[in-house]
Amino acid sequence: MRRCALFFNMEDARDYIKKTADMMQPVLLEYFKDEEQPIREMMEHPIKAGGKRVRPALLLLACEIVGGSPDKALPAAASVELLHTFTLVHDDMMDHDMERRGRPTVHAIWGDEMGIIVGDTLYSAAFRALMDLKKHKVPEGRILDVMEELIRANAELHEGQILDMLYSKRSDVLEGEYLKMIGKKTGALLESSLRMGAIVGGGSKKEVDALGRFGMCLGLAFQIKDDILGLTADEKELGKPVGSDICEGKKSLPVLHAIRNAKESERERLSAILERREACDLGASMEIIRRTKSIEYSKRQLARHTLQAKKELGIFRESPAKQRLLLLSDFLLQRRF
Amino acid sequence: MRRCALFFNMEDARDYIKKTADMMQPVLLEYFKDEEQPIREMMEHPIKAGGKRVRPALLLLACEIVGGSPDKALPAAASVELLHTFTLVHDDMMDHDMERRGRPTVHAIWGDEMGIIVGDTLYSAAFRALMDLKKHKVPEGRILDVMEELIRANAELHEGQILDMLYSKRSDVLEGEYLKMIGKKTGALLESSLRMGAIVGGGSKKEVDALGRFGMCLGLAFQIKDDILGLTADEKELGKPVGSDICEGKKSLPVLHAIRNAKESERERLSAILERREACDLGASMEIIRRTKSIEYSKRQLARHTLQAKKELGIFRESPAKQRLLLLSDFLLQRRF
Repeated sequence: MRRCALFFNMEDARDYIKKTADMMQPVLLEYFKDEEQPIREMMEHPIKAGGKRVRPALLLLACEIVGGSPDKALPAAASVELLHTFTLVHDDMMDHDMERRGRPTVHAIWGDEMGIIVGDTLYSAAFRALMDLKKHKVPEGRILDVMEELIRANAELHEGQILDMLYSKRSDVLEGEYLKMIGKKTGALLESSLRMGAIVGGGSKKEVDALGRFGMCLGLAFQIKDDILGLTADEKELGKPVGSDICEGKKSLPVLHAIRNAKESERERLSAILERREACDLGASMEIIRRTKSIEYSKRQLARHTLQAKKELGIFRESPAKQRLLLLSDFLLQRRF
Repeated sequence: MRRCALFFNMEDARDYIKKTADMMQPVLLEYFKDEEQPIREMMEHPIKAGGKRVRPALLLLACEIVGGSPDKALPAAASVELLHTFTLVHDDMMDHDMERRGRPTVHAIWGDEMGIIVGDTLYSAAFRALMDLKKHKVPEGRILDVMEELIRANAELHEGQILDMLYSKRSDVLEGEYLKMIGKKTGALLESSLRMGAIVGGGSKKEVDALGRFGMCLGLAFQIKDDILGLTADEKELGKPVGSDICEGKKSLPVLHAIRNAKESERERLSAILERREACDLGASMEIIRRTKSIEYSKRQLARHTLQAKKELGIFRESPAKQRLLLLSDFLLQRRF
């Protein structure tokens, strides 16, 4: 029966995510409805491409868990998603990715110049959205605090992106450096999303801090899960060749662990592949990862961050919102691709 | 003696601009002092490239003219300059410009990917700076109003940039469309700079609005002056071939006026050159501009906007700040390159 109950829970979480995403879509599109064509079409394109809207879902639950009304937090939920969408548009350009979620990317359709400016405009819309908290009668002090959160996340996000680019040229990246980088690149916006929801909802400092840490741990876990899937997922489900991260020189937790724990000669070999000084031998790389038990190590780290995330919710009494936050973290971390 | 007095005034304005720029430099660099290398170097590069810091100078004077203390407004002054610097970094990329003020541009040194992200980080620093108004004991309501101004200017700026790119493919741009575009691209941030200074200084709604309109008129005049100089300046002082705007298909007020007022055959010729359907014949183009008296027309428009700008200051009683604002607008509009 345990299995059945779990399945029911996962369905519930999937359902909740789906409902939030459907509800967010018109809210997000609203910010561009007054634009003339073709600006409107360009701005709507990356939003219509969809996405799970994980950040809005978490932000609204954070508002609810502290006793606030999620409706009031809608502009903040839109804001974090717009900021996230902006990073995708610029990231796709920097990575020269021509498709995302099966649709051509902005720069693939309208060129690099428009890619830059569409991203910049989404970025400005993220801040524009926050000003709507006024209309929702959120007190001025709280709006300013929420604004401060978005600004901080935003700065961290860019620093994480720069670190990622700098690290991509090095194979001697330390695990601590890697965690700092993903903490900024993935963790910071999740941390701020939860803090923003809690602030709008009128949570205490203790509650805001706990939810922020929950978000950061979830972000780290999410990224580590991504790293593991990149080396172990079903190729068809993953949508790209398994192990392609290695050939692209991407630093991931399993690979960094393998480099640190491999024998001298293997370390040299893996470093050379990662730095692209040597042709990519996926079989040999995977063998080194297997021998150093780097997937197992990464799974332990994933479990550690997940457990820590859940622990942070310990200060809240049981409620549907708390149950959903716990379920949602399971749902996000149990994905197979 | 009139000439001598004017000269003294211009010197005073130049001096004031220089002093403000010197004072702003450490304030601007402060926002990146905690970054690790090489991030710090990349972020400091476009700031160290200098600039007149016109927006901070105007913002601080707007604060002073309404009776506020300019010191309090320093973070807001930093903010508008950081936002302006961000637009330069992204604009240089979009225009494929490898040099600015005699120094290589960010993307020319570190590549396009870093160009995007350095711009994004400057952008986030502009918002970060505003949060420092808290430390300067500016009331929360005012900080929120200032934030709203930056957000609005920011959105307009990007819309102006998109319109500019869309218009560059058309030769039938109407003067009204053109004014709307430069109003967003150049006017909006000047308008907001002045409004922000006045808000921090505690100005009344009437004062804030008048200073905002002063900024917008100044912005339009500034851009029209730029258009005129592009066709009439001394080539050595201009730093690029006179008329190169035409060969690059750039829409400017004199060119749009010439197209509208030229004879059928000349209009067709100029349109073809602007749309690059025909090789650039600068002599023929300049001849059409001369015959349609388009430079003279543009000068009249420049004078009209300048006069309007000055009129807006009519509600303020005489003060050193008012005198400086008037002088500064003369200084900016009397430049020869």
